Amino acid sequence: MLYLIGLGLSYKSDITVRGLEAVRNCQRVYLEHYTSILMAASLEELEEYYGKPIILADRELVETGSDDILRDAKKEDVAFLVVGDPFGATTHTDLVLRAKKSGIPVEVVHNASVMNAVGSCGLQLYTFGQTISMVFFTENWRPDSWYDKIMENRKIGLHTLVLLDIKVKEQSIENMARGRLIYEPPRYMSISQCCEQLLEIEETRGTKAYTPATPAVAISRLGSAAQSFKAGTIEELSQYDSGEPLHSLVILGRQCHDLEVEYLLEFADNKEKFRQDVIADQEFFKPAPWTPPVETDD
Amino acid sequence: MLYLIGLGLSYKSDITVRGLEAVRNCQRVYLEHYTSILMAASLEELEEYYGKPIILADRELVETGSDDILRDAKKEDVAFLVVGDPFGATTHTDLVLRAKKSGIPVEVVHNASVMNAVGSCGLQLYTFGQTISMVFFTENWRPDSWYDKIMENRKIGLHTLVLLDIKVKEQSIENMARGRLIYEPPRYMSISQCCEQLLEIEETRGTKAYTPATPAVAISRLGSAAQSFKAGTIEELSQYDSGEPLHSLVILGRQCHDLEVEYLLEFADNKEKFRQDVIADQEFFKPAPWTPPVETDD
Repeated sequence: MLYLIGLGLSYKSDITVRGLEAVRNCQRVYLEHYTSILMAASLEELEEYYGKPIILADRELVETGSDDILRDAKKEDVAFLVVGDPFGATTHTDLVLRAKKSGIPVEVVHNASVMNAVGSCGLQLYTFGQTISMVFFTENWRPDSWYDKIMENRKIGLHTLVLLDIKVKEQSIENMARGRLIYEPPRYMSISQCCEQLLEIEETRGTKAYTPATPAVAISRLGSAAQSFKAGTIEELSQYDSGEPLHSLVILGRQCHDLEVEYLLEFADNKEKFRQDVIADQEFFKPAPWTPPVETDD
Repeated sequence: MLYLIGLGLSYKSDITVRGLEAVRNCQRVYLEHYTSILMAASLEELEEYYGKPIILADRELVETGSDDILRDAKKEDVAFLVVGDPFGATTHTDLVLRAKKSGIPVEVVHNASVMNAVGSCGLQLYTFGQTISMVFFTENWRPDSWYDKIMENRKIGLHTLVLLDIKVKEQSIENMARGRLIYEPPRYMSISQCCEQLLEIEETRGTKAYTPATPAVAISRLGSAAQSFKAGTIEELSQYDSGEPLHSLVILGRQCHDLEVEYLLEFADNKEKFRQDVIADQEFFKPAPWTPPVETDD
């Protein structure tokens, strides 16, 4: 059996009881280790908690070495652990397909992921549109296809969840060229960097998918004891010190009810200003008001 | 302390280890009991598992009786349990706001909800648009504002998650009029009824937000041992016997990659037909192809 088990967001005890029982019965335990990290538990703590050694699975192992992971999984139990949910931001459908093709039964143990826990900022999950990823810009690579997606979401009034880049096993170009397996320290995008990149692309494109005054919510360390939210405009948040990772951002859409705004005010430095910013931004992409049909004498 | 604790989707052991520890330490335990049900555990099993009596919280208690729930929560620990995640389909922001205003600290223990576990059908959560709710039509009440939302999602190629109505504490009009607290047996919408309502409104509106041939995925008993998926057109699924509750439906959008389609084929009765249905449906709302600018002799 192949178990795909979500670990949730932060603590080692965020695993479900059913998930923990499964891990403890598995012969081999892999931890997917390139799209997210568990914030409040080290690898050693997890190994002690499970009573098992853990094999770290980088992108290469998952994408090209899945035979290793699936080895003997017809007769043994293998756990593949994923921070968040196994079908959250990064789906592991490929691994499941390969298992099924080899006749290996698969069981999924779901858990919270940023894709649903983001609801704790107070915005209804119902009114979120497509999710975008913001990658670190480099001198020569400043991808901005996400801009059109924000535009599409905002045109119909929906919020946009922005997932911020993390680099956990990155080689410098020099080390890569020389084939040296030396990795850079991990990097996690901050809220301010994300907002700066948003502002830069809006300035280049200039079609007002959003403006510097568009309200947003910074979500830091979601699900951990140090969790925090900050509500402000994109421009204000480009100056915000968001502290330790991980971070995500929600860009508001027009569909925002009073109760949601009231909840967000708790996270604003200047409540009255934030309320006014939300009201002003709701004018963007507003449908034309309904007008009664003109009466005629027919 | 007020704990809002997600129970996940199905088993009593779908609670997280951290959530279970919190429940066992609480003086009072409420279970929200009007928006969803835990499929594989009865109330008695949960009480035995937690070692605590459980107070069922219907809509009335949560919406108007929150003082009861929050009573003494400054000095005692109170658990409010929610199937799925506390900020999933139904958000409990109102209860959190009232707690905060009374100076009661709040801790949230997240869990999987249909809003993220739906990813296990193989469609990427990234490309879902706004979520809609399908209520039971009655003779005089056939609300269809969700139709415009499907249209908006599909215009930009996004999938639509449809949450199906459940009625767990419903009075007949006669019993309500006579003030008799007698409740009807619980009702859960089936996939076929949902698809019939979709077809009826499309026939009335006629603006092709979707057609009878639009592909969809029926998701039944998500997260339980009896979980099942069925891929087919809306018309095919209107004839589908989906079995025991709970059910949800995903109406596909145009943004569907080969790997996602391949995964869905596992759930189709006629794989080749389903693949062709997906290809045909992707023509709806397709952006015009890019054409090179015309060369001029300027």
